[in-house]
Amino acid sequence: MTNVYIQGIGMTKFGKFVDQSMKSLLLEASIQALEDAGNPKVDAVFVGNFMGGSISNQEILGAIVANELGLGYVPTAKVEGACASGGIALRQGIMGILSGEYDTVLVAGVEKMKHASTADVTQAINAAMDTDSNEKQAGLTFPGFFGVLANRYFYETEATKEHLAMIAMKNRENALNNPLAQFRKPTTMEEIMEARIITSPLGLFDCSPTTDGAAALIISRKKGGVHIRASAQSSGPTQMQDAADLLSLPAVRESGRLAYEKAGVSPDDIDVVEIHDCFSMTEMLAIEELGFFNKREGWLAIEQGQTKVTGGKPVNTSGGLLSRGHPIGATGIAQIYHLVQQLRGTAPNQVEGARLALAQNLGGTGSYSTVHILERL
Amino acid sequence: MTNVYIQGIGMTKFGKFVDQSMKSLLLEASIQALEDAGNPKVDAVFVGNFMGGSISNQEILGAIVANELGLGYVPTAKVEGACASGGIALRQGIMGILSGEYDTVLVAGVEKMKHASTADVTQAINAAMDTDSNEKQAGLTFPGFFGVLANRYFYETEATKEHLAMIAMKNRENALNNPLAQFRKPTTMEEIMEARIITSPLGLFDCSPTTDGAAALIISRKKGGVHIRASAQSSGPTQMQDAADLLSLPAVRESGRLAYEKAGVSPDDIDVVEIHDCFSMTEMLAIEELGFFNKREGWLAIEQGQTKVTGGKPVNTSGGLLSRGHPIGATGIAQIYHLVQQLRGTAPNQVEGARLALAQNLGGTGSYSTVHILERL
Repeated sequence: MTNVYIQGIGMTKFGKFVDQSMKSLLLEASIQALEDAGNPKVDAVFVGNFMGGSISNQEILGAIVANELGLGYVPTAKVEGACASGGIALRQGIMGILSGEYDTVLVAGVEKMKHASTADVTQAINAAMDTDSNEKQAGLTFPGFFGVLANRYFYETEATKEHLAMIAMKNRENALNNPLAQFRKPTTMEEIMEARIITSPLGLFDCSPTTDGAAALIISRKKGGVHIRASAQSSGPTQMQDAADLLSLPAVRESGRLAYEKAGVSPDDIDVVEIHDCFSMTEMLAIEELGFFNKREGWLAIEQGQTKVTGGKPVNTSGGLLSRGHPIGATGIAQIYHLVQQLRGTAPNQVEGARLALAQNLGGTGSYSTVHILERL
Repeated sequence: MTNVYIQGIGMTKFGKFVDQSMKSLLLEASIQALEDAGNPKVDAVFVGNFMGGSISNQEILGAIVANELGLGYVPTAKVEGACASGGIALRQGIMGILSGEYDTVLVAGVEKMKHASTADVTQAINAAMDTDSNEKQAGLTFPGFFGVLANRYFYETEATKEHLAMIAMKNRENALNNPLAQFRKPTTMEEIMEARIITSPLGLFDCSPTTDGAAALIISRKKGGVHIRASAQSSGPTQMQDAADLLSLPAVRESGRLAYEKAGVSPDDIDVVEIHDCFSMTEMLAIEELGFFNKREGWLAIEQGQTKVTGGKPVNTSGGLLSRGHPIGATGIAQIYHLVQQLRGTAPNQVEGARLALAQNLGGTGSYSTVHILERL
């Protein structure tokens, strides 16, 4: 349990914004969050961001926010943990409050990716693998990694490519109702199944896109808003060859276990979930690792529609990374944005009576995972 | 006052290491720190790093350290705040302990710069300026910024280029005794004064070099070792045009003021100092902003030798950034490494009876400053 509460949320539309800079997106989301919280005095700023240095030649995002928003001398930092940068930034904000150093913290996440070439973005993303490893040197990529996992999953279970397509389809449908989502075009199962292959068996719709966008939160020790009931983070193997079980993401499992323990709740108590579906296959593994379904049985739950908005365990009602979009550093914060909407009762695809929500943010090939459990007061 | 103590320190030699990767440097320093602390159980890892993504295609440094050292599922993060990345990483470690989440934390800093071209490194360093600003777009660089400040300082005081050379010379002499320093070649005032100009009036010896290197600390709530009496951080303007006074670094002044307040000490109480002398001019301003000497009188103190090892206020007895070297993300941690040696009584250029030490780490053109005050128990 923490004594930290979410008082304000902000988020830009996710998509391609050629006329916006990383800074302008970051400020837009931050100003929204500040206004939503009633413009409190802010004591510190944490920004989650992954590839600002490499493809936008822009670091010092913390100081830029503090200066542009006139926050004064407040301490700030950028936090990086690959695609979990947002979730980890939130965790630093929470610890800043728990430490007694800060009362109110602005936590934001941002990424600007659409201006760069696919080759440059792919190269930048590969910084989330160990450069000294033979895997990276041999040319492993992220679609390659999760493609291998999908093939192994098919081998060990009765799941097929159609089950992955059902995940992609569900998140696609959820995004239709989310005005901030990147993809809001109706899509059919046929389109998903027949889309060009990125890494077999993963097709285009099984892979999250590149995205511009930002999201922000105001968290505070002042009681009110949405309660952060637990914050947990774990590390896992940085290399595929170090995985004891290819169908396990130990960091996800362990961060989930810790979060449940800290919150004093079980997977059954969770009403609505945002999971890091960088690939459809990642959502499949994560719903198992977080204990919502038995290991190697996630595909059955998918088949039964249990993770749909109307199912017993709604997952990625925002559209997820697959359809809301995946501006890397912003993703972990955008998950919280959407869950706060769910707990306020104002979300697209609202889950009636949602009281407990869980967000899980992944980095690298399972190198980082954060889990936050939120509670309606 | 904090309840956090430094139990172990580690540092690689600083210089050019073509056969080492960022990872190998980081591990070398981390293993040293762990051994120095008696190999305690570590609960979290924070890594300060600035340009790993852009010039080494390597992020996820936190997870890499946790995996390679077999630390298990511990939470980790990389922290970025330009050249203050190390100091800010230390601060996150301290807050992690103050928050009650962690008992013992590994804080490391690393940078690998010598493999890249001068153009690539200059470009990467410029990520520490605001890309949307007209200053950056017009071509301002860091030597340019501090060169302007030096000219202004000469205009407002009776200081000359020779006073900057005295700073460079002092740090050069200090580095002669530091086995880990990058530059250990005896140098004369004539060489310094006549060296090629980088940005007038700053010559080659007025500018810190590019460097490969890493440093690491084990901090813990367990009493013992060196006490971290205060940790403070402040933000300042990200653009030169926003400076109210070109001869002021508000983030340095404010972080110093906060640190003294938290520690309950005054500038006069400090026995030994490591300051962020990215340029000789930066040391001049910082010794004033930290209250060791009156504003616009730092040059007099330099002339009188007050900041030499044998003076009343020894500054950069390690050789400073100018001569110990400046592997950006490692610098803030290397400052602490050296001050812990001073407080243990085992430093090169030992200051007899040193009890209170101060480290100041700067980022950007004054965008970030951290100040840590350490105390011998």
